[in-house]
Amino acid sequence: MKALKDKIRTEGKILPGSVLKVSSFLNHQMDSDFIMKIGEEFARRFQDVPVDKILTIESSGIAVALAVGTALHVPVLFAKKHLTSNIFGEPYQTVVHSYTHNSDYTVVVEREYLNQGEQVLLIDDFLANGKALEGLLELISQAGAVAVGAGIVIEKGFQEGGERLRQAGLRVESLAIIEDMDESGIRFRES
Amino acid sequence: MKALKDKIRTEGKILPGSVLKVSSFLNHQMDSDFIMKIGEEFARRFQDVPVDKILTIESSGIAVALAVGTALHVPVLFAKKHLTSNIFGEPYQTVVHSYTHNSDYTVVVEREYLNQGEQVLLIDDFLANGKALEGLLELISQAGAVAVGAGIVIEKGFQEGGERLRQAGLRVESLAIIEDMDESGIRFRES
Repeated sequence: MKALKDKIRTEGKILPGSVLKVSSFLNHQMDSDFIMKIGEEFARRFQDVPVDKILTIESSGIAVALAVGTALHVPVLFAKKHLTSNIFGEPYQTVVHSYTHNSDYTVVVEREYLNQGEQVLLIDDFLANGKALEGLLELISQAGAVAVGAGIVIEKGFQEGGERLRQAGLRVESLAIIEDMDESGIRFRES
Repeated sequence: MKALKDKIRTEGKILPGSVLKVSSFLNHQMDSDFIMKIGEEFARRFQDVPVDKILTIESSGIAVALAVGTALHVPVLFAKKHLTSNIFGEPYQTVVHSYTHNSDYTVVVEREYLNQGEQVLLIDDFLANGKALEGLLELISQAGAVAVGAGIVIEKGFQEGGERLRQAGLRVESLAIIEDMDESGIRFRES
């Protein structure tokens, strides 16, 4: 998605530890109109597959997931990162390791919102080591639902998550794949 | 907003501790098309005032805030609930008490995304004791920005936050105000 790559080049900041900061338009401040366009692009890419529901993970996946849900007119479910007092019964849950924060956290969704046989499209803002996405896949597996694919805004192609998930058979559509980045700039993988 | 009150009546669940659970359409699973309609309704209600930016708080405010930002074609900023490794420099920050979780947390926004003189519309899914909204007002105050009002999806009219904020001069527009609720049902304040 050329408009996205342009925006990453002009607004993105490269920080130590292979961190690409896109907080000006994607995951702290959000460019509303642009995020809705991202939603339409994912809807276009996955138009060949029936989608019953979008699944993402709080917090930074929520906006893009809503944009996709709006474009496809399907509900969006976000996995919560900890047990809150409003969750009763035994939710679907699994533990995810965060390399960014160097800690483990639990992701949960309530049973009634993820159902056997549902065709679920995963959406997230970033894909790097793939641990968050694998956590969502585990929740889908627990529910007996079907992952039809994953729509990722920015994939770090120099980390192994995307490659591993594709080899495992998941359809991953990333709007921008970063081949490598350093002080001199960002190089995207040719699509 | 009649469609919202109908949805609360049909899908809302009343839990112990005056908790109204609307996780089927608002803040766990989200009815995408309905949330976009909520965004349009807030845009209509605040059409008399210039809005430069939407400010909300993660996680459950993000979807509605994006819907409002889309309707008004302005950016959305969400306050984060803790310091992450991607925030550098000294952000605007303040401490908020959560009655739901009986704990304090820090909300932060980066300085570059909230600017002096900006006209900011606050958006959140719930208003009860008003502590989250007061935290956002404090961030706006630190930035020298201007709070033009607050758009709330569901206000618990039997808790004191809305009353206190209105008396302090904040324009609060709530799409549904719950006068009281118990096992027998939910009674809304007449608008």
